[in-house]
Amino acid sequence: MFKLKTTKKKSRLGVLKTRRGNIATPVFMPIATKGAIKTLSVEEIKKLKPEIILGNTYHLMLRPGKEFLYKAGGLHKFMKWPKSILTDSGGFQVFSLAKIRKMSEDGVTFNSHIDGKKYFLTPEESIDIQMAIGSDIMMVLDECVELPAERDYLEKSIELTARWASRCFEYYFKKVKKSKKNRALLFGIIQGGTDLDLRTKSALALKKLDFDGYAIGGLAVGESEQEMYSILQHIDKLLPKDKPRYLMGVGYPNQIVQAVKYGIDMFDCVIPTREARHGRMYFWNEKVNFKKAFWKNNDKSFYTVANIKKELFKNDFLPINKESAFPELKNYSKAYLRHLFITDEPLAARLCTLNNLEFYLTLMSKIKEELKA
Amino acid sequence: MFKLKTTKKKSRLGVLKTRRGNIATPVFMPIATKGAIKTLSVEEIKKLKPEIILGNTYHLMLRPGKEFLYKAGGLHKFMKWPKSILTDSGGFQVFSLAKIRKMSEDGVTFNSHIDGKKYFLTPEESIDIQMAIGSDIMMVLDECVELPAERDYLEKSIELTARWASRCFEYYFKKVKKSKKNRALLFGIIQGGTDLDLRTKSALALKKLDFDGYAIGGLAVGESEQEMYSILQHIDKLLPKDKPRYLMGVGYPNQIVQAVKYGIDMFDCVIPTREARHGRMYFWNEKVNFKKAFWKNNDKSFYTVANIKKELFKNDFLPINKESAFPELKNYSKAYLRHLFITDEPLAARLCTLNNLEFYLTLMSKIKEELKA
Repeated sequence: MFKLKTTKKKSRLGVLKTRRGNIATPVFMPIATKGAIKTLSVEEIKKLKPEIILGNTYHLMLRPGKEFLYKAGGLHKFMKWPKSILTDSGGFQVFSLAKIRKMSEDGVTFNSHIDGKKYFLTPEESIDIQMAIGSDIMMVLDECVELPAERDYLEKSIELTARWASRCFEYYFKKVKKSKKNRALLFGIIQGGTDLDLRTKSALALKKLDFDGYAIGGLAVGESEQEMYSILQHIDKLLPKDKPRYLMGVGYPNQIVQAVKYGIDMFDCVIPTREARHGRMYFWNEKVNFKKAFWKNNDKSFYTVANIKKELFKNDFLPINKESAFPELKNYSKAYLRHLFITDEPLAARLCTLNNLEFYLTLMSKIKEELKA
Repeated sequence: MFKLKTTKKKSRLGVLKTRRGNIATPVFMPIATKGAIKTLSVEEIKKLKPEIILGNTYHLMLRPGKEFLYKAGGLHKFMKWPKSILTDSGGFQVFSLAKIRKMSEDGVTFNSHIDGKKYFLTPEESIDIQMAIGSDIMMVLDECVELPAERDYLEKSIELTARWASRCFEYYFKKVKKSKKNRALLFGIIQGGTDLDLRTKSALALKKLDFDGYAIGGLAVGESEQEMYSILQHIDKLLPKDKPRYLMGVGYPNQIVQAVKYGIDMFDCVIPTREARHGRMYFWNEKVNFKKAFWKNNDKSFYTVANIKKELFKNDFLPINKESAFPELKNYSKAYLRHLFITDEPLAARLCTLNNLEFYLTLMSKIKEELKA
């Protein structure tokens, strides 16, 4: 399932094999929350060439729903995406979006943020929904505790999350043999906030179960960058070398580079797509050599972020990105893109989304090149 | 500038030559209000293959503005569209969108609907703005009277509109020689509401000036279809045969077919694009032979309009349009498109826009085929 090819200091270059293809790691997974990367068609996604995208179980369980997804033959067929899909467990969004949550040993009861409808999500139900989606990499259901929280509460939460992980593991591998070819992969999620002891506890509990990969959850939620990096350094020692490591919800380009240097293989983040819809664009800093910047500590100099709506771009008739694979980004000027934003044209968000995802995916290529070198 | 090739009863098949190419008529012009067909990139517009699109002077004078457009080298260069652009005069939107209008012999004072900024639009200024846009077919500034209106007011308005038309004509052809090759074309606009006598008066006044074409304004604003057709029949006799005839703002597919049979050569309408954004889709009725339907009186049987958001499409896994030139429309199911609408995904409006414009442009091809036959 995962082959570690080379390491360079703690950085890892590998291949993650799913039933839908081989994914060169480190990899960034663009987010297709509700069965589409917002503003993009699958034709455009294919042209961006991600090897895997991410779907959100919480959103998909509300609409179009589990039964529908079974009937539609899964999300790949529904959205015409042939490559890998990773799904989260629904946990994170139940705890950040849904209303009136009630926790119990069994699972979490919540009301939909759309229409108030009541749902009961258990570890087993999360796996069922992810199987209806046809996910290639599934995540276990975890409790995402709102920080700050009492250490006592956090500790209990870690224990519950470990029990839920175990239930997911048992439930899935009872349904599908672990040795079965072409089965979906199942990842555990390490929680524990910024407390290193709790992270250890969580990691060790999960390691007892032989998951296909290990995710690190509960980061990039308000803690400092330095705290995040400390946790990554700490966890690196606890995890098996031969399993992929996925840092959930991270992050800015410099954070991805830094996390790669702490041994992370997989990333997902809403930043390139969400910020695009507000005109925030990621560009390469042409004055900086990426290879040099890569090995510096948490260097941010290799990219710039600019809000295209700014007056600054009003008369900037240079191409949005002269190196882009998309004729729209090569041909249209920044001044035109600014005009589209200022006048609320829907095309604006699409062009920025393409730009930012192309930037993130190019970043991953550059990182891999650097690790191969 | 215009060559009438053949006629079939009153229908006309022709070629309208602008400095940017030959346009086979009857033609439908998709609307790119503010320098973009809403939701589409120029790559997509090119694939739809319209020979001409329409820009709105009112919107473009507010944003990005005349001075900017001069600096940008015109709208073609700004939005990367190489073929013809027709612009309206700004009149219609000043009278429908702007706030606190004040009419005078000289022109119309209004406040922008965006920020309240005051503008003074005269016939000469309208031509200036259209020249800054780089329009290939410009329209004269006209007063668009809100109906119902007193006959006396309408009559005075027609006289004013004729004087304004004359001022546009003189102003433009003083700036640019009428014999100059590669100049933009200038069309007059016939007004007069549903009053045939006033329409005659307006048409005769405009005919005295040798415009490059004649538009019929003030229709499809609430009158019955039959009233509209009566006016078209009436005007047909008044207009020179060797000039193109443009029915502004029309219409539904059956109205376009019917107007072609009354001798109209050019159309524009927001219907395919605006309705797309609300999920209303135009499809061919496969059970009906278009050739037969074409010659029937005001036949609507050759197309269907469906709101893709309806429950009816929830489990419709058939392609959106299996004949489409766009892989997205060929591959995605109606059920998926419905899901995109229900979940507010921006891709939904784009797919519907492509579908509807492809329908309208195919309609024009079918009409031309029928007239050639």
